[in-house]
Amino acid sequence: MALQTAVTKLLNIRYPVIQGGMIWVSGWKLAAACSRAGVLGLIGAGSMDPELLRHHIQRLRQACPKGGWGVNLPIFFQHAEAMIQVIEDENVPVVVTSGGSPGVYTARLKDAGRRVLHVTSTPKLALKCQSAGVDAVVVEGFEAGGHNGRDELTTMTLVGRCVDTVDIPVIAAGGIADGRSMAAALALGAAGVQIGTALVASEESSAHPAFKQAVIEANDGDTALLMRQLIPVRTLKNQWAHDVMAAEARGADKDTLLNLLGEGRSRRGMFEGDWQQGELEIGQAAAGVKGIRPAGEIIEDMVAQCRHTIARLAALQ
Amino acid sequence: MALQTAVTKLLNIRYPVIQGGMIWVSGWKLAAACSRAGVLGLIGAGSMDPELLRHHIQRLRQACPKGGWGVNLPIFFQHAEAMIQVIEDENVPVVVTSGGSPGVYTARLKDAGRRVLHVTSTPKLALKCQSAGVDAVVVEGFEAGGHNGRDELTTMTLVGRCVDTVDIPVIAAGGIADGRSMAAALALGAAGVQIGTALVASEESSAHPAFKQAVIEANDGDTALLMRQLIPVRTLKNQWAHDVMAAEARGADKDTLLNLLGEGRSRRGMFEGDWQQGELEIGQAAAGVKGIRPAGEIIEDMVAQCRHTIARLAALQ
Repeated sequence: MALQTAVTKLLNIRYPVIQGGMIWVSGWKLAAACSRAGVLGLIGAGSMDPELLRHHIQRLRQACPKGGWGVNLPIFFQHAEAMIQVIEDENVPVVVTSGGSPGVYTARLKDAGRRVLHVTSTPKLALKCQSAGVDAVVVEGFEAGGHNGRDELTTMTLVGRCVDTVDIPVIAAGGIADGRSMAAALALGAAGVQIGTALVASEESSAHPAFKQAVIEANDGDTALLMRQLIPVRTLKNQWAHDVMAAEARGADKDTLLNLLGEGRSRRGMFEGDWQQGELEIGQAAAGVKGIRPAGEIIEDMVAQCRHTIARLAALQ
Repeated sequence: MALQTAVTKLLNIRYPVIQGGMIWVSGWKLAAACSRAGVLGLIGAGSMDPELLRHHIQRLRQACPKGGWGVNLPIFFQHAEAMIQVIEDENVPVVVTSGGSPGVYTARLKDAGRRVLHVTSTPKLALKCQSAGVDAVVVEGFEAGGHNGRDELTTMTLVGRCVDTVDIPVIAAGGIADGRSMAAALALGAAGVQIGTALVASEESSAHPAFKQAVIEANDGDTALLMRQLIPVRTLKNQWAHDVMAAEARGADKDTLLNLLGEGRSRRGMFEGDWQQGELEIGQAAAGVKGIRPAGEIIEDMVAQCRHTIARLAALQ
């Protein structure tokens, strides 16, 4: 078997790739397609309530009875406690937590032999994850879509620093959307990669067609990091994002920004398709997304290009 | 010979590495040390007047009569025309231009068989460089020190996009400071890398000892991108940088920022050693710099680690 790393062994998957859990985008259908393609499929629980999560877990288990999937849960989330209960009831094999402290739920989640990963954005926090007992850490660079770290460390600088700081496997996220960037992440010392943006416009994604279309049309420089004073988030630069950027340039305070965010902004954009007034979370890698394709095909192409890239590098020696 | 690429052939150097031309940091001594180590050494002309540049070129030619060196020239610079004249008089073999349009001087500089590269930060501008006739393009990501692009594309996303956009060789810059990131850049499709931050604290660098010490002490998250309304620049977060960030958060206008910048801020920081009130241009990779070492040793270690990294990747196949 090719491309075996500590992550393929840890998660019992064919390729060292995790499909990022994305709100409004990664329900059981996308997770199942990714799991069938040999990578870890994740339900993005951050946009679900506990009963909807239970439904998605049950459908995913039916589709992939052998495992190779899990749930991503932002633990600062209002329903976190109830969501953890559902994860335990349904015996989810892998949980990727994000936001909040890895110390809060890791021990409890690991109790039943569950694998627990945590998403973070600095070497210092990666060390905190290791101390909390997580099995591997997902480290996400500035170029990543969605919520983002305050230190703005990019994947190119972040991954090596984390690898030098912790002993547990490091999974690179942010800007990884093809086989070249996958190979680059492995070169930096990552034992695997997490991909999100590359799958938003997949057939199995539950993103609204208008959001998928906006991703396909995005060019270089069409995303921005917004809301640095609240929780930084990378989105497409639509009308709403431009309004936020203009307010920030004027020195807007937190209350003004909270008002601009309002309620349900991400649902409105990513799930309901309001591509000008909604929040469209996506990474810089959107510029390379060219059409709507099956997730399995995206993953197969990525892995094949990664192997080709490694062979190309080996020929330089 | 190992690690031969289009860039080693183009520039007649042993390794596909360029030492970035850095104001106040890379005079003839650093350029000579790098050239002797088998990479392209560059005088950073942006902090020199024409006669000082001539002096540095003459000393560099004496030190390295066989070539393997050149000059980096910001062409928006006040003395640009006179500097170009010196470059022609002294028959400099390689010129890396930055800032401004590659259309202005490229044809003239190439006239005498000179190699001309241009530094840019987007695929669109890389295409413009190619149209202007440059031999290769240096593409610099958000994590890089010093002046920086407005689109904030990181090295991980920028390099592959540029490789897909132009036919000329792409040299990756930003966040590349060891052999892992060098191998990562080659994986992304770069034909070479440019390194700057890794050499600021080298023995042969003309950075003030206090600046070198600040780089050695820098941790992850200790740099920031400032002055987005003027020309964005990445610096260490010293007292001056914190003052700029505070002004920006209050919605400061261009005049306020120009006042905060004042005159000679970079000289004061990088050359005179005012580590709190000076401008200390450095990339995110500073967090990995641990001591003052000879430039040749830094480069040898980097190349050796790159080769080791490629062998490690090949073993995954």
